[in-house]
Amino acid sequence: MKLLVAKSAGFCFGVKRAMDMAREAARKHPERLHTLGPLIHNPQAVEYLENLGVKVKERIEDVPGGTVIFRSHGVSLQDLTKARKRRLRIIDATCPMVKRAQRFAKFLHRHGYALLIVGDADHPEVEAIRSYVDERVQVVRSVESARRLGPWEKLGVIAQTTQSSGIFTEIVASVLEKSKEIRVFNTICQATTVRQREAIDIAKKVDCMVVVGGYNSGNTQRLASICREIQPCTLHIETARELDPKKLANKGRIGLTAGASTPHWIIEEVEEEVRSLNQKR
Amino acid sequence: MKLLVAKSAGFCFGVKRAMDMAREAARKHPERLHTLGPLIHNPQAVEYLENLGVKVKERIEDVPGGTVIFRSHGVSLQDLTKARKRRLRIIDATCPMVKRAQRFAKFLHRHGYALLIVGDADHPEVEAIRSYVDERVQVVRSVESARRLGPWEKLGVIAQTTQSSGIFTEIVASVLEKSKEIRVFNTICQATTVRQREAIDIAKKVDCMVVVGGYNSGNTQRLASICREIQPCTLHIETARELDPKKLANKGRIGLTAGASTPHWIIEEVEEEVRSLNQKR
Repeated sequence: MKLLVAKSAGFCFGVKRAMDMAREAARKHPERLHTLGPLIHNPQAVEYLENLGVKVKERIEDVPGGTVIFRSHGVSLQDLTKARKRRLRIIDATCPMVKRAQRFAKFLHRHGYALLIVGDADHPEVEAIRSYVDERVQVVRSVESARRLGPWEKLGVIAQTTQSSGIFTEIVASVLEKSKEIRVFNTICQATTVRQREAIDIAKKVDCMVVVGGYNSGNTQRLASICREIQPCTLHIETARELDPKKLANKGRIGLTAGASTPHWIIEEVEEEVRSLNQKR
Repeated sequence: MKLLVAKSAGFCFGVKRAMDMAREAARKHPERLHTLGPLIHNPQAVEYLENLGVKVKERIEDVPGGTVIFRSHGVSLQDLTKARKRRLRIIDATCPMVKRAQRFAKFLHRHGYALLIVGDADHPEVEAIRSYVDERVQVVRSVESARRLGPWEKLGVIAQTTQSSGIFTEIVASVLEKSKEIRVFNTICQATTVRQREAIDIAKKVDCMVVVGGYNSGNTQRLASICREIQPCTLHIETARELDPKKLANKGRIGLTAGASTPHWIIEEVEEEVRSLNQKR
């Protein structure tokens, strides 16, 4: 069995930065330290942080004072205002690429563009972006939904930073005829594009693809879905324990990649497990 | 035999306006009256104008004084400057939709966008647009050529007003990943879109499609090519004389459309000819 591991698997710049900031905070002032929602979409990484004293609160109202860390996906204007009013100490771990998308959303809104966000309406990143431009915002994640929208005079388009480039392109193409002007900021981050491209390359070469990452992680779900289109034998798992030996039996080549929020220790465990399953045969 | 004639066949607003302006000029001051290049891309219409006294000169230097009419496709900055310097009387029959495309090109250029024009590099409309923004302009008419371009920081995209919407969309989609910002002004005119859509609808319903218009007319060529993709039996003719009875034999349903520069009298002649060929059988 040959195992092809993606070089781009695991933590992206923004996630690594958020984890470092949280660890540093735990070291400096571990008392009353909370993140607003999970810092990143990986239960194991969140558990690791909890052991360092970083607790999760879902609502800003439930943070009992002290320090609040804003998650990598960003924070809504409403929560930001509340945190300031309550004079919480703020550590902003919002990914700089997400901040950039927020800036473009505000810019487009300010300049009179109707805003279309290519992304998942219920993802915290998209919810946060929307909160800064409350009116005339539409969120779509499929060409079918996009086709039902418009027409517009001036349309601004951005993407959730971890969207699939393919879907983003298709959606822009589908609305192109329905607006006199379209201004597109491609806010899909480079790390996402590179990760998706490498996953596609590997998926084409293997008999089964293993994608590691939180079941609640949007970018991992999309990574698995992109791989599945090419290689129907694609397994999305969160940890090594969920590897099903039967599914990997008799596979000459196996591919391995992981979402942006998957810690390296989990990827390494999965890698070892795949290799050891193969030796047991 | 059933004949389906497109409602949108023939003169668009811009061509009709240019023809009216030329006729009016011939009535008022027929001496030394010239167009710079053919007023519209239809030899029969140009011949008709010549009989009224409107002569064609290919170069501004060859206009011997008097009045010059700028063609529907627009005039280059260089020719405009020369015409003014020589104090020619100017009648500007540039299509307002073409002027709009020129304005957007200048706007994008002024705001620091690299400019991509979807169109034919040697079409007078595109040549005129380019002349106002001499640097950093790229012209493409196929997805294959577009794929070889970029990357850009800021890309502005416009189209020749009579381009095919389908190709325009594909080209924008193909460059989307190669620029951080893309600003698209859909300058394809409404008349073109409507005409192409109706042609597609009719082509789907018939056994042969007849497209009437100048062989030198870009929009007629594209109309024929769009129809041919759907209905391989598509005949592009300039006048009724070129109709080949053999090609229309045994066709239950025939479709008829015409380019934006095709005069109604030619369309009517073709229509009569198709009907009479059928009666002769």
